[in-house]
Amino acid sequence: MTDSGMTDDGLRFSFDGEIERITLAEPGKRNALSLQKMQALTAHLKAIDTSASASLVIIDAEGPAFSAGHDLGEMCGIELEASQEIFDACVELMATIHDIRQPVIAAVDGIATAAGCQLVAACDLAVATDTSTFATPGVRIGLFCSTPMVPISRAVGRKRAMQMLLTGNPISAATAADWGLINSVVSADGLDAAVDQLAADILRWSSHTIGVGKAAFYEQIDQSEPDAYEFTKRVMSSNAVDHVAQEGISAFLDKREPEWPA
Amino acid sequence: MTDSGMTDDGLRFSFDGEIERITLAEPGKRNALSLQKMQALTAHLKAIDTSASASLVIIDAEGPAFSAGHDLGEMCGIELEASQEIFDACVELMATIHDIRQPVIAAVDGIATAAGCQLVAACDLAVATDTSTFATPGVRIGLFCSTPMVPISRAVGRKRAMQMLLTGNPISAATAADWGLINSVVSADGLDAAVDQLAADILRWSSHTIGVGKAAFYEQIDQSEPDAYEFTKRVMSSNAVDHVAQEGISAFLDKREPEWPA
Amino acid sequence: MTDSGMTDDGLRFSFDGEIERITLAEPGKRNALSLQKMQALTAHLKAIDTSASASLVIIDAEGPAFSAGHDLGEMCGIELEASQEIFDACVELMATIHDIRQPVIAAVDGIATAAGCQLVAACDLAVATDTSTFATPGVRIGLFCSTPMVPISRAVGRKRAMQMLLTGNPISAATAADWGLINSVVSADGLDAAVDQLAADILRWSSHTIGVGKAAFYEQIDQSEPDAYEFTKRVMSSNAVDHVAQEGISAFLDKREPEWPA
Repeated sequence: MTDSGMTDDGLRFSFDGEIERITLAEPGKRNALSLQKMQALTAHLKAIDTSASASLVIIDAEGPAFSAGHDLGEMCGIELEASQEIFDACVELMATIHDIRQPVIAAVDGIATAAGCQLVAACDLAVATDTSTFATPGVRIGLFCSTPMVPISRAVGRKRAMQMLLTGNPISAATAADWGLINSVVSADGLDAAVDQLAADILRWSSHTIGVGKAAFYEQIDQSEPDAYEFTKRVMSSNAVDHVAQEGISAFLDKREPEWPA
Repeated sequence: MTDSGMTDDGLRFSFDGEIERITLAEPGKRNALSLQKMQALTAHLKAIDTSASASLVIIDAEGPAFSAGHDLGEMCGIELEASQEIFDACVELMATIHDIRQPVIAAVDGIATAAGCQLVAACDLAVATDTSTFATPGVRIGLFCSTPMVPISRAVGRKRAMQMLLTGNPISAATAADWGLINSVVSADGLDAAVDQLAADILRWSSHTIGVGKAAFYEQIDQSEPDAYEFTKRVMSSNAVDHVAQEGISAFLDKREPEWPA
Repeated sequence: MTDSGMTDDGLRFSFDGEIERITLAEPGKRNALSLQKMQALTAHLKAIDTSASASLVIIDAEGPAFSAGHDLGEMCGIELEASQEIFDACVELMATIHDIRQPVIAAVDGIATAAGCQLVAACDLAVATDTSTFATPGVRIGLFCSTPMVPISRAVGRKRAMQMLLTGNPISAATAADWGLINSVVSADGLDAAVDQLAADILRWSSHTIGVGKAAFYEQIDQSEPDAYEFTKRVMSSNAVDHVAQEGISAFLDKREPEWPA
C-alpha cells in the first residue's frame, strides 16, 4: 500500500501499485452520495485515468449500506438550480466510470439503492454478497429514480426495470445476478477472494489493450449493429498492428508467455 | 365498483375508484383483437389517461385464451388499405399503453399469441399463471409476426425472439418469466392475489410521480446512454423540486408517512 | 445429397435439396477463419441467398474446435492495410449471415472463441453440446475482441459481455444458453437430432414468409421502438395481402393444411 488516506468527503482511497481502491467510508450516513462526495469521486477517477501505474479500480464500502443514494438532506427545500447541479454531478460521475481506461469493479456487501444501485450498474463489473439487495425506491419519496433507470433498464430489461421502479421493492443479489445487473454472488466471507480473483483475471493482460477495448465497448454499445461494426473493425484492425498485439501474437505462435510492453 | 359494463366489442370495463380493469370478454372468439376491439381499447385507454382518479390499469381476459391475436376472419381476402388500417390500429393500441400515465398490468391465464402476445409484451408489467403459454405463430399462416416482434425481441433478446418467430412454437410461462417477457408466474388460483399485490405495491405511491417516471422510462429507453442521461437528469432535477417529492423527502427525514398531494 | 464437396479453404458444402450445410472442416487448424475462408464463406452464403431451393443453412464443424477465430499466422507482422482487409472480410461475413433470406443455425460441438464465438452470435439460431465453451480471449494476445463484442454484447448484456471480454475466461454452454447467446444445450449425441428438429420446425413454413420476416427482424432490431413499429406495420400489412398469407389464412379458417405457393 503506497498511498492511502481518508478524504473530507467520507471516502478512503488506497493504491497498491496496481489497483486503486475507493472505499465509501461514511457508514453513519449509509454512504450517501452527497454533491461533494460525487465531485470528489469524479475528480479521483479522472486522476486515476491519467495515472501510469493504475490498472484497475475497485469500489467497495464500509457498513451495512454500499450506498443509499443521494443525500436527501441536501434536497430538502432545494431550488431548481441546486437540484440540477446535483444531477449533473451524478451523471458526470457515472459517465466518468465508463470514460476512464481502467476497468471498475463494484464490490457490494449490503444495500445499494437509488443512485447507489445506479453506481453498481455503472461499474464495468460487480460482485455482491448474498445478503446484498438492490432497489430503486425513489417512488417512496415521490422522486422517481429517473437517472438510475438509465443503466439499470439497460442491464435488466424493460419489465424487470419497470417492476423495480414502480414498486420500489428490492431484489436479492441472486436475482440481480440472474438479471445481469451484477456478475456474481458470493457468501459474505468470500467477497474479497472473489473480487481479488476477478481483478487478477484482468490484471494478467496488457493495460493498453484493456483500455482500447473498454473505450470501444461503450462507444459501440449504443450504436446500430452496422455502425458498431464499422467502428469496431477500425479499432480492431489498428489494434492488431500495435506492438502489444504483435508481441501477444508472436508469443502465442511461439508457445511462450507474452511480455507486455510498458 | 362504481362503473361497469359490457361494450359491443367483446370488452368489459370496470372501475373501483382507483383501478381500471379491462377484461377481454369474448372467449368464444378467443379474444381476437378485431379492428373495432383495438380501436375501442385505444379509446378507453386514452380516456383513462385523462381520468383524475384512475391510478392503474389491469388487462385480463375470460376463457382459455388471453388473446389469440388479430381476427383472421377480417383478413381473409382483405385489400391493402384495409390491412394497413388494421396494423395502424394495432400499433396505436400498443403505443397508447406506453403513452398513458398509469401503469398497465397484464394478468394472463391462458394462451397469448401473435398480437395477443404483443399486447402482453407492450404492458408495463405482466403476471401469468403457470399453464399460460406465449407464441408468435404467424409463420404458420404465412403472416410473419412482424409487429409483435418489436416489443418481444426487445424483451427476450435476439436468439430467443428468432426461435419464437421462425418456429412459431409456444414457450411456457416459466420460460417467459426467465426470459423477461413477463414479471412472474403463479399458480392458477394465485393470479388474482399476485396481481392485487403488485397493484397495491404501486398504488401506495403518488400517481403524479408514477406518471412522471413512466413517461420518462419510455422516452429514455430507445436513446443512447449519453442522450438518456441528458434527458433524465432534467426530468429528475425538476421532479426533485416538485411539491410531491418535497413532501416525500420531508416525511422521510421526519420519519413519518408522506401525505401525497392530490 | 445432390451436391457436396471440399473446397480449397477448409470448408465442406453439401445440399440435400432443402438444407445447405456448411462444415468447417479444417480441424488441424482449429477451423481458423483465414481471410480466404471468410471470403469463401461469404461468397457461398450469397450464392445460397439467390438459390431457389435452399430454405435453411446449418453451419457445423469437424474436430474439437467449432472455430478458434482468426488465423493468427496471418496476423503476425501484418501491415495496417492487410489487417483492415481481414476485419472488413470478417464483418462482411457476419453481415451476410443476417442479410441472406434463409435462417442460419449454428450447430456447435467444441470451443468457439473470438471470431468463432462471434460467428455463433451472428447466426440466427444456435444449438450447442454441453461440453462446448464460448470465449472472447483476445486480451490474452493483446488483441481485444472488439468486433466479436458487437453481436456478443447485444446477446448477453453489458456486465456479462464485459466479464468475457476483460478476463478472456470461457463460459460453458449452459451459461451461454442462460445468457441468450445460444438457444439450447444438448448432450453430445443429441446435437444432430436437436438441430434437425429445429430445422424441421422452420422448414414446415413458407420460405417466402421466413425471408420477409428475417429481413424485417434485423431491420427493426436497431431502431427505436416507434420507428420499428412504423417500419414493421408496413411490412406486416403488405405481408397480410400477399398470396402466401392469404392461402395460410384461408387454410386456417377452413381447418385444412395450407399449400404454400412456390
